[in-house]
Amino acid sequence: MSKIKNKHVYTFGNKEAEGNATMKNLLGGKGANLAEMNLIGVPVPPGFTINTDVCTLYYKEGRDQVVELIRKEVEAGVKNVENIMGTKFGDKENPCLLSVRSGARASMPGMMDTVLNLGLNDIAVEGITRRTGNERFAWDSYRRFVQMYGDVVMEMKPESKEDIDPFEEIIDKLKEEKKVNLDTDLSTDDLKELVKRFKTAVKAKTGKDFPDDPWEQLWGSIMAVFGSWMTERAIYYRKLNDIPDEWGTAVNVQAMVFGNMGQNSGTGVAFTRDAATGEDIFNGEYLIDAQGEDVVAGIRTPGQITKEGSIRWAALAKVSEEDRKSNFPSLEEVMPEIYKELDATQQKLEDHYTDMQDLEFTIQDGKLWLLQTRNGKRTCAAMVKIAMDMLDEGMINKKTALMRVEPNKLDELLHPVFDDNAIKKANVVAKGLPASPGAATGQIVFHADEAEEWAASEKKVILVRIETSPEDLKGMNVAEGILTARGGMTSHAAVVARGMGKCCVSGAGSIKIDYKARTLSCDGITFKEGDWISLNGSTGEVYEGKIQTTQPEMSGDFGKIMELANKTARMKVRTNADTPHDSQVARDFGAVGIGLCRTEHMFFGDGKIQAMREMILAEDEDGRRKALDILLPIQREDFEGIFEAMHDLPVTVRLLDPPLHEFVPHEEKGQQEMADLMGITLEGVKEKVENLSEINPMLGHRGCRLGNTYPEISEMQARAIIEAAMNLKAKGINTHPEIMIPLTGTIEEMKMQEDIVRTTAEKVFKEKGDRIDYLVGTMIEVPRAALTADEIATSAEFFSFGTNDLTQMTFGYSRDDAGKFLPVYLQKNILKVDPFQELDQTGVGQLVEMSVKKGRKTRPNIKLGICGEHGGDPSSVEFCHRVGLDYVSCSPFRVPIARLAAAQAVIRKKEEKKAKKTSKKHKKAKK
Amino acid sequence: MSKIKNKHVYTFGNKEAEGNATMKNLLGGKGANLAEMNLIGVPVPPGFTINTDVCTLYYKEGRDQVVELIRKEVEAGVKNVENIMGTKFGDKENPCLLSVRSGARASMPGMMDTVLNLGLNDIAVEGITRRTGNERFAWDSYRRFVQMYGDVVMEMKPESKEDIDPFEEIIDKLKEEKKVNLDTDLSTDDLKELVKRFKTAVKAKTGKDFPDDPWEQLWGSIMAVFGSWMTERAIYYRKLNDIPDEWGTAVNVQAMVFGNMGQNSGTGVAFTRDAATGEDIFNGEYLIDAQGEDVVAGIRTPGQITKEGSIRWAALAKVSEEDRKSNFPSLEEVMPEIYKELDATQQKLEDHYTDMQDLEFTIQDGKLWLLQTRNGKRTCAAMVKIAMDMLDEGMINKKTALMRVEPNKLDELLHPVFDDNAIKKANVVAKGLPASPGAATGQIVFHADEAEEWAASEKKVILVRIETSPEDLKGMNVAEGILTARGGMTSHAAVVARGMGKCCVSGAGSIKIDYKARTLSCDGITFKEGDWISLNGSTGEVYEGKIQTTQPEMSGDFGKIMELANKTARMKVRTNADTPHDSQVARDFGAVGIGLCRTEHMFFGDGKIQAMREMILAEDEDGRRKALDILLPIQREDFEGIFEAMHDLPVTVRLLDPPLHEFVPHEEKGQQEMADLMGITLEGVKEKVENLSEINPMLGHRGCRLGNTYPEISEMQARAIIEAAMNLKAKGINTHPEIMIPLTGTIEEMKMQEDIVRTTAEKVFKEKGDRIDYLVGTMIEVPRAALTADEIATSAEFFSFGTNDLTQMTFGYSRDDAGKFLPVYLQKNILKVDPFQELDQTGVGQLVEMSVKKGRKTRPNIKLGICGEHGGDPSSVEFCHRVGLDYVSCSPFRVPIARLAAAQAVIRKKEEKKAKKTSKKHKKAKK
Repeated sequence: MSKIKNKHVYTFGNKEAEGNATMKNLLGGKGANLAEMNLIGVPVPPGFTINTDVCTLYYKEGRDQVVELIRKEVEAGVKNVENIMGTKFGDKENPCLLSVRSGARASMPGMMDTVLNLGLNDIAVEGITRRTGNERFAWDSYRRFVQMYGDVVMEMKPESKEDIDPFEEIIDKLKEEKKVNLDTDLSTDDLKELVKRFKTAVKAKTGKDFPDDPWEQLWGSIMAVFGSWMTERAIYYRKLNDIPDEWGTAVNVQAMVFGNMGQNSGTGVAFTRDAATGEDIFNGEYLIDAQGEDVVAGIRTPGQITKEGSIRWAALAKVSEEDRKSNFPSLEEVMPEIYKELDATQQKLEDHYTDMQDLEFTIQDGKLWLLQTRNGKRTCAAMVKIAMDMLDEGMINKKTALMRVEPNKLDELLHPVFDDNAIKKANVVAKGLPASPGAATGQIVFHADEAEEWAASEKKVILVRIETSPEDLKGMNVAEGILTARGGMTSHAAVVARGMGKCCVSGAGSIKIDYKARTLSCDGITFKEGDWISLNGSTGEVYEGKIQTTQPEMSGDFGKIMELANKTARMKVRTNADTPHDSQVARDFGAVGIGLCRTEHMFFGDGKIQAMREMILAEDEDGRRKALDILLPIQREDFEGIFEAMHDLPVTVRLLDPPLHEFVPHEEKGQQEMADLMGITLEGVKEKVENLSEINPMLGHRGCRLGNTYPEISEMQARAIIEAAMNLKAKGINTHPEIMIPLTGTIEEMKMQEDIVRTTAEKVFKEKGDRIDYLVGTMIEVPRAALTADEIATSAEFFSFGTNDLTQMTFGYSRDDAGKFLPVYLQKNILKVDPFQELDQTGVGQLVEMSVKKGRKTRPNIKLGICGEHGGDPSSVEFCHRVGLDYVSCSPFRVPIARLAAAQAVIRKKEEKKAKKTSKKHKKAKK
Repeated sequence: MSKIKNKHVYTFGNKEAEGNATMKNLLGGKGANLAEMNLIGVPVPPGFTINTDVCTLYYKEGRDQVVELIRKEVEAGVKNVENIMGTKFGDKENPCLLSVRSGARASMPGMMDTVLNLGLNDIAVEGITRRTGNERFAWDSYRRFVQMYGDVVMEMKPESKEDIDPFEEIIDKLKEEKKVNLDTDLSTDDLKELVKRFKTAVKAKTGKDFPDDPWEQLWGSIMAVFGSWMTERAIYYRKLNDIPDEWGTAVNVQAMVFGNMGQNSGTGVAFTRDAATGEDIFNGEYLIDAQGEDVVAGIRTPGQITKEGSIRWAALAKVSEEDRKSNFPSLEEVMPEIYKELDATQQKLEDHYTDMQDLEFTIQDGKLWLLQTRNGKRTCAAMVKIAMDMLDEGMINKKTALMRVEPNKLDELLHPVFDDNAIKKANVVAKGLPASPGAATGQIVFHADEAEEWAASEKKVILVRIETSPEDLKGMNVAEGILTARGGMTSHAAVVARGMGKCCVSGAGSIKIDYKARTLSCDGITFKEGDWISLNGSTGEVYEGKIQTTQPEMSGDFGKIMELANKTARMKVRTNADTPHDSQVARDFGAVGIGLCRTEHMFFGDGKIQAMREMILAEDEDGRRKALDILLPIQREDFEGIFEAMHDLPVTVRLLDPPLHEFVPHEEKGQQEMADLMGITLEGVKEKVENLSEINPMLGHRGCRLGNTYPEISEMQARAIIEAAMNLKAKGINTHPEIMIPLTGTIEEMKMQEDIVRTTAEKVFKEKGDRIDYLVGTMIEVPRAALTADEIATSAEFFSFGTNDLTQMTFGYSRDDAGKFLPVYLQKNILKVDPFQELDQTGVGQLVEMSVKKGRKTRPNIKLGICGEHGGDPSSVEFCHRVGLDYVSCSPFRVPIARLAAAQAVIRKKEEKKAKKTSKKHKKAKK
């Protein structure tokens, strides 16, 4: 293997290659595929790839060391290109021109630098003129090269944002002098003049001569590509896309081919299947006499590659068949032979890669060259359809089909989206966090109760709040979407909205909300109550005005892939839901139980909140019991609804968790109301409310600390649960209640709560003369619970990991306040990901794993699940599978995602195991 | 050993015994010593001890099973008493009378039940009359027995708190009928009448006949003693004194001896040394013709046992020698023979037990009986003196001397206390937590700045606040003591006060403070500003008015025991201090470094706080840097002072930790001041302040999150530290700075801070052309830091366990808010101890141990210490020793405690090791 280590440059060309498709880590995606295409006989301009290790070395040891290290290999690579193409670097007769492109392991489109037409100088340009018989083309290529190289390698950038590009400035000046409008109006002499002026400008600004030596040009370009790996935008892109900085980029050096050498040349991009719908239709666009950028630039309207596509396009664009034929013919019609070769090639590539391919090609003077192939990006709908189609076609097996769908992408299929055309014209006025996906449009209201009123009169509203609290729940429920100025991805607004499957943008720090004036200001615009805005919960964007939304349809393939997932996954997927409606939604999405039914939301709403407040404000146990007597039938009824919706499936009900301060009225009006209701003074209410406030409510009087200081609350809740289950049993409906104690930190806390639950249940059984089965278990969300899980399992029949709180306490991050430093931490790379979104496997995960081991040691058949937000995050689901949980539970709209992720976890683990076995065998064989 | 398991009753008497002093766990302290006294030839009334296992069985299996189990053994025990005493149970001629007393492993004085004179009935009373020739004595004993048995066994208790004892009611009634005032005025016939009426009352109230059968009496009494183990007050006492419920009590049944049989009888208590001072003087009190209770009851003035003591007493009581001789003679004078025997016995007992003994004795008709011996309780001064004296006398070795001093007791020697006489008359008006020990008396002020003003004019003030914040620091420093309405043992007030060695009562929930009216209300009294109150920081009591305090003197023995401790301890003891004064105090107490020098306190005070606020309120880095430039010389000077005070010793300086919100002005006046100073609007300041507020500040933007989001702060602090050290070096003063990063949770956070510190240090070295040695390390106070200690140790050169925060996050308890549930948790036994006072070894300790292992694995020579409050708690210090920390750090006034605890930890571990070895040997031998 040591030989490989000293190899840094991999040549390819003429159906031979030193690399192949499996070497993406070393050669980058582009380089590996260029090699592979050669190996399967696809025509590719010859060249070589400098591997990613060299990039790493570049940052470790610097430019000079790297040049020394790879000089001979690069020289040999160039020689190979010259040999194949019959050209020569800097030659007067037949000069070798090269392209230099980046190519990382993962695609980072447009993020890094490219240099084309390299090798041109005052001598070579004559060679090109002679070879092509096209002096203008030769000088235009030269002009472009100087411009590109000047920009990329010699850093001829605009001085500031306001300044124009220095080369464009020169072009504009010359056009003015020549009194012409278009670049194409410039004569060959003008182009020569431009090259001269460009070089003069470079010298003036950088103090360096523009290099004429092709070798100097080549080294400059290669190093510039390595340098572009660490530009700000590249770093930012990688952060967004979870690409590690350590990967580095490869550099691909290839012979230039030109699509702009006349009517017998051209260029295009193509997809082997439809990237939007997944249909098995070869499609793409091309331009005659053009270079690659021109297709993307959109100055000329490209033609369709297939005739069928062209006809379809014309129908949509309302272009007559005559017009189409003459002005927008397909490649199939214009160059039937080339088309035939291209079609065969695309088929070959798709068959070879067994996935939908995204191709770039160039036709130079009647010869087809493939410049790139890669797995094509696609919509979720296409992802699902292509996977299932290829499975049906026998191209891939079930495992591969399952692995082809990105779980997180499924979200697209489940939420409304903005109409494509409408969104193009829309004006973004603010950006927050993409807290809960989907699109929403509505009129601004600032108060939850008013949201209810407006909604009642059939208005569509967006609830805009600085932050939300449980009091806002009903208003959130009727709103189309929620926008908050504060709070992260796991703020109250975000968590609740995701639970509801409702669009939410949270923590839009740049907006200013004035509750009194009822205005929302951002981006210089002041919106009033009733004004229309729109939210994209998948991107965090906030738009001015009303934007049409559409509800994507779920294809039949979606159901099939879910079925496949179910057959593969070991873990079950439950849902977090606390209404019959949400339960039903989740069940429809395939949830096989409720993993977290919060009971606190039930206390909000007419009649309930008053009784709840009376309970909280009561002077003593008697007072509390009186109020609890009112709450009991209400809770029972709530549970009956949920249990019925989830009949035959387990429902984990968590006893009261939040600090009581969240329930009491904080404004005088509500306080007076309670004073009147309870016949006490306003001051008395105020004092009680004040007494309940806490400095760190997250670590305060909440969870089972409530039930252990006021056992009568747990008693009431246990009774409501058991009575609800028994009432349903009497109606022949089967229930499986699992009663969950929140925030347990010591075995004594757990035992005391278990006692209350079991004693109460026995009482109810006696009263009703019947019994049901139920479990008592606990959340593991306090680090100490994880550390003492062996003790806690002596009482708890199940553990459910509350990884939201566990993450808060393990990191010591308040998710309500983390907005002050988390963004900086992510930006500075102190944190690779937001631990509230992806479970921190190193730290928090250790506690989860510890609990699993300790819990199972004490109680081998203990049920283990997760009900934190992470239960719907694919990477966290995979972790849960690996540590051996029995189920994950997530919000209804993430159930399909979790189901798929659970299936993929099984496949991935098996593959790892296989890989390990193989490597062991290899090691053995070596011995 | 199985034979022993079936043995439940251990007899003793006549210099023989089945038990001995080592069997305290089984026989209780009293029982073991009764046996032991027999073995060494001390006269003890014969009897037997029912072991503690039976108590456990009593609660597991119930009364009947227990009686069945031990019946034969108890019968044999009684027989043995009868044989030795020549008496017979229930006999008409010479009845056997018994006492039944509890006796747990640890002394629980007055907590459990006792029955005396058992065996009396209408027949036996005649026997006693005949034997003693004293009918009145016989019937008085009978009357007392019925009363005691009725109370203890038959539960003849007052119906409610307001009611009088039912027996006392009968006595009062008879006295009224007989028109007499004193019990002693009742005739023998009256006593007979009382017995009759008592029995009638028992029958009427309980429906049961009073038992005449001595056996029934005996079983009833034994079971009543077992039953009294679980009375509310016993449970409460055990909680207060950390005695486990599982221990159970033994029952001691003994032949009765009477000190009240005439002038040739008597009773007394004695100490082999002076329990207050530790002086080696036999001392005690006695009464002629009296029973044990009479000495304690204080109705008659007891005489002194020794003549020397009697003369001393007379001098103090201003009693003439003549008066003394005739009315208060010593036992030595009254019964010289008995005295001689007693003196020899006390000497024998002290020599035998090699500790100061607390004896109870009874003289019955000229014969001395010892009823009890135990190690005497003593003041801390006595504890230290006796230990050192006995060491000097060769009675005990160094290890034993060290183990004889309770570390926590040392506190008594270090703080002022209330004058004994003054405190007796004082009125307790409220009770809070004993947050910081000592006594304080002063005038009430409600604001820190006013405390400063008042103190400046030589007034003694008590600062009374709802809670304190860092802004109150200077006021706290000048106050005699601090009283807060809110906050626990580790609230700001408590922690700071302990650091200052200043008396503090925190969380006195019953007091109401009205800042506006400047009043403090409690217990129905309203105190105004300027009124006098007094605080006992060791008990949490708040007194009305001014109470004299005294400063206890430190004896030379204290120094000697500390020296001994130093020679024995492996761990070093450092201190938590952030002023030169505190550093010096701690150094005087033997601290060998600073383990935690907080830097935030330095920012309060004239001129500093404004610059700090400017820094916080600045718009951008430039603004912050400007303010930091002002702070730099101030910090540097602070560090110079501390480093100088701690010359040659290591000083761990923690970089800025608290959330910035704690520094900004919260009242408009201060906000306006900042607005003026900074030339911005009041609204601007208000908005900034508002933006800084957090929902859970404990888990918010603080610790190294500050230094990582605003690196310029860490930079300034690092520079101040390094520059201070270099300035001192220039003056020839040796320093060892250790720079500590707070609240680290990830290796990336640590690395980034380390980088800032090292880069800054190198800059300073370059500037000064010299270098110093310094360390960079971190607090381990976030659970994730403990879990990833192996990673963090790659950067950190030392760990200091911040167990306050680690406890908060591991339990999920906010120490500011825990007052709402912690007291209930302690009361309900959910928590055995407050985890903020004693390190939770099961949970938090796991994380500490894990960090130690992981940290040492990465960096074998990593320095490990603790700087949480637990560093001054003996049980936690022992834990630290066991897990292998290098040092503990605590507030200056706890340094001696920690030093002693560290020494004891070594001894205890060695003893455990020895015990293990021995038990291994035994096991081996058995094989």
